[in-house]
Amino acid sequence: MPSLAERARELDAIDPLADRRKLFDLDDSVVYLDGNSLGAPPRSVADRMTEVVREQWGRRLIRSWGEGWWTAPERVGDRIAPLVGAAPGQVVVGDSTSANLFKALVAALRMAEGRKEIVVDAATFPTDGYIASSVARLMGATVRAAALDALELTENTAVVLANQVDYRTGRAYDVGAITSEVHAAGALVLWDLCHSVGALPVDLDAHGVDLAVGCTYKFLNGGPGAPAFLYVPQRLQDSFDQPLAGWNGHREPFAMAPEFEPSSAIARGRCGTPDILSMLALDAALDVWDGVNITDVREKSLALTGFFIDCVDSLVGSRVSVVTPRDSTRGSQVSLACEDAQAVMDALIARDVIGDFRPPNVLRFGFAALYGRYTDALRAASTLADVLT
Amino acid sequence: MPSLAERARELDAIDPLADRRKLFDLDDSVVYLDGNSLGAPPRSVADRMTEVVREQWGRRLIRSWGEGWWTAPERVGDRIAPLVGAAPGQVVVGDSTSANLFKALVAALRMAEGRKEIVVDAATFPTDGYIASSVARLMGATVRAAALDALELTENTAVVLANQVDYRTGRAYDVGAITSEVHAAGALVLWDLCHSVGALPVDLDAHGVDLAVGCTYKFLNGGPGAPAFLYVPQRLQDSFDQPLAGWNGHREPFAMAPEFEPSSAIARGRCGTPDILSMLALDAALDVWDGVNITDVREKSLALTGFFIDCVDSLVGSRVSVVTPRDSTRGSQVSLACEDAQAVMDALIARDVIGDFRPPNVLRFGFAALYGRYTDALRAASTLADVLT
Repeated sequence: MPSLAERARELDAIDPLADRRKLFDLDDSVVYLDGNSLGAPPRSVADRMTEVVREQWGRRLIRSWGEGWWTAPERVGDRIAPLVGAAPGQVVVGDSTSANLFKALVAALRMAEGRKEIVVDAATFPTDGYIASSVARLMGATVRAAALDALELTENTAVVLANQVDYRTGRAYDVGAITSEVHAAGALVLWDLCHSVGALPVDLDAHGVDLAVGCTYKFLNGGPGAPAFLYVPQRLQDSFDQPLAGWNGHREPFAMAPEFEPSSAIARGRCGTPDILSMLALDAALDVWDGVNITDVREKSLALTGFFIDCVDSLVGSRVSVVTPRDSTRGSQVSLACEDAQAVMDALIARDVIGDFRPPNVLRFGFAALYGRYTDALRAASTLADVLT
Repeated sequence: MPSLAERARELDAIDPLADRRKLFDLDDSVVYLDGNSLGAPPRSVADRMTEVVREQWGRRLIRSWGEGWWTAPERVGDRIAPLVGAAPGQVVVGDSTSANLFKALVAALRMAEGRKEIVVDAATFPTDGYIASSVARLMGATVRAAALDALELTENTAVVLANQVDYRTGRAYDVGAITSEVHAAGALVLWDLCHSVGALPVDLDAHGVDLAVGCTYKFLNGGPGAPAFLYVPQRLQDSFDQPLAGWNGHREPFAMAPEFEPSSAIARGRCGTPDILSMLALDAALDVWDGVNITDVREKSLALTGFFIDCVDSLVGSRVSVVTPRDSTRGSQVSLACEDAQAVMDALIARDVIGDFRPPNVLRFGFAALYGRYTDALRAASTLADVLT
């Protein structure tokens, strides 16, 4: 039986996505397993930023708004669309995930006239719950937290806000099945894709999803705080009545009309002037996806996280417990529970194995299929074994 | 009597801010008079972006969040604070102006319990009115447009949203006098500083202003769509109850607590993860203000716009009418009304004199004191005279 080291080298050697790693600016001395929090920089970003600042801003000045800047939110959205299974014209980039959740939840309550309950995934990243509470307060609605496998929807449920991947445990949920369940109850579903976009297939159009948001700085590698995205399918765009109705979402923004009339397209999801530097950094970062099939990404992600779990089982054993599902119902991270998890993670980082800590006791290791290596997974597990000795 | 050309050369020669121009990456062949729409790039921005992408993001990766990124919204806010007359700890940077208007208007209505009218400056940039209408709809309030010199406040007025400088005409209003008038009526005032920050003194603290927002991509030169700022004075921070209550505004964001508890400081104005690339481009851009006194900026701005009006009077005459006040009640732009204004502006831009057009018939020329030159003002007026012949 080959050793873990032999297996790791062989898996790297036959990895069909191995060539992608050279598109990233990463030190080989560092094992970077926090791409589920901040993706690594694609090499193209730094030069693109220089060009945007010196040429587009410096030489073309205000004229650049008419030479690609104004339409960047929809154009970059159309580059993300295939990664989430959306046809063009349904994804717009801008603002933060929290702000887009706010837009989408208010719009959903307005669509679901009469129904007044927001159901929030009980395991959600906290901002989703905070925003849901804020929206409920403004709209005279209520918020109920529920596990995604025990939703208990009622005739009063307007919208279910669900995370495709649990940020803490790494468990992945079935978008199709949950969407169908929500629709059967007459409610709308809003998917938060922060921990799944770029890591596994989403198929928004195919599943008839109503609304979705996601961030671009994790598996999409768009840069720290890169603008988020909002998905509104064609069939709902006319009824998408969102509250951050700034001038960018107007039908004719440069008419400077006193009354707001929303754009008839996905642009109605826009609010104020988009952050162009961050938007075009993301645009450059998306180049690493050219020619990549998301099913290949998923295949490698499962293999890589599975191999890491094997290494942890062999080398670390019962000193940690694997929180992430061992079957295929996981995203692209492995979470391990252990005592003193914060101190353990600090020690790992001091040894150049970078994951992160999530309270109360979770070590998270994110695996990005475009730059992750099996040898790195092994090194992470063996460093963890050292730290825990 | 010296010619206009002689006067221009002499005024440039004695300009105490003349040395600032070399801090900007501007072609001398272009007369750039659209800094009131998109400021010119400070030279430091391109290299800073390279450092942020390659070193902070590339080498430090996720660790950079603990090495200055997380607190950047407040730190950069504190760099803007002196330009608007605010003590530290009262300005936070992030999101768009429209999103910040939304936060501030909802918070203002909540503070003004019982009062239900939002009064909006009738001449406002449209997004302010759009956002006010959206907030009114959510909060069961009403919106009334009123001229800033005829506000007609009532006991039902909760908040007045006013622009210090009219984006179309360039007229500047008296922040102190209007703030006092609004306070005398028992209402709150929210100032939109988009067209004044970096162009003239604001003195928010001294005037007892309640709330303010502004953008950073005009006279602050932060880059296209650079993040906006929000001012909440210390005395109102505990009662600033804003609706975009994302995890960044939480008292302990990394506790990942299920309930939202707002920060006790200006951070409660934050929403989602801040756009770090755009934020740090702005940070670099603010270096051009080091050692600059805003009263010197105001003095040059009045002299430069006054000289431009003289040139227009002499060279263009009655073919245009000067919309902007000829006395000192103006911001840092000159607006001229003329027929076929869009075509005239296109012809000017084709001759490398860059201003902009605002409907229905306004040519706008913005003068940025840090890089504007008297010889450029003369060239703009004489090119306009040529175009109109």
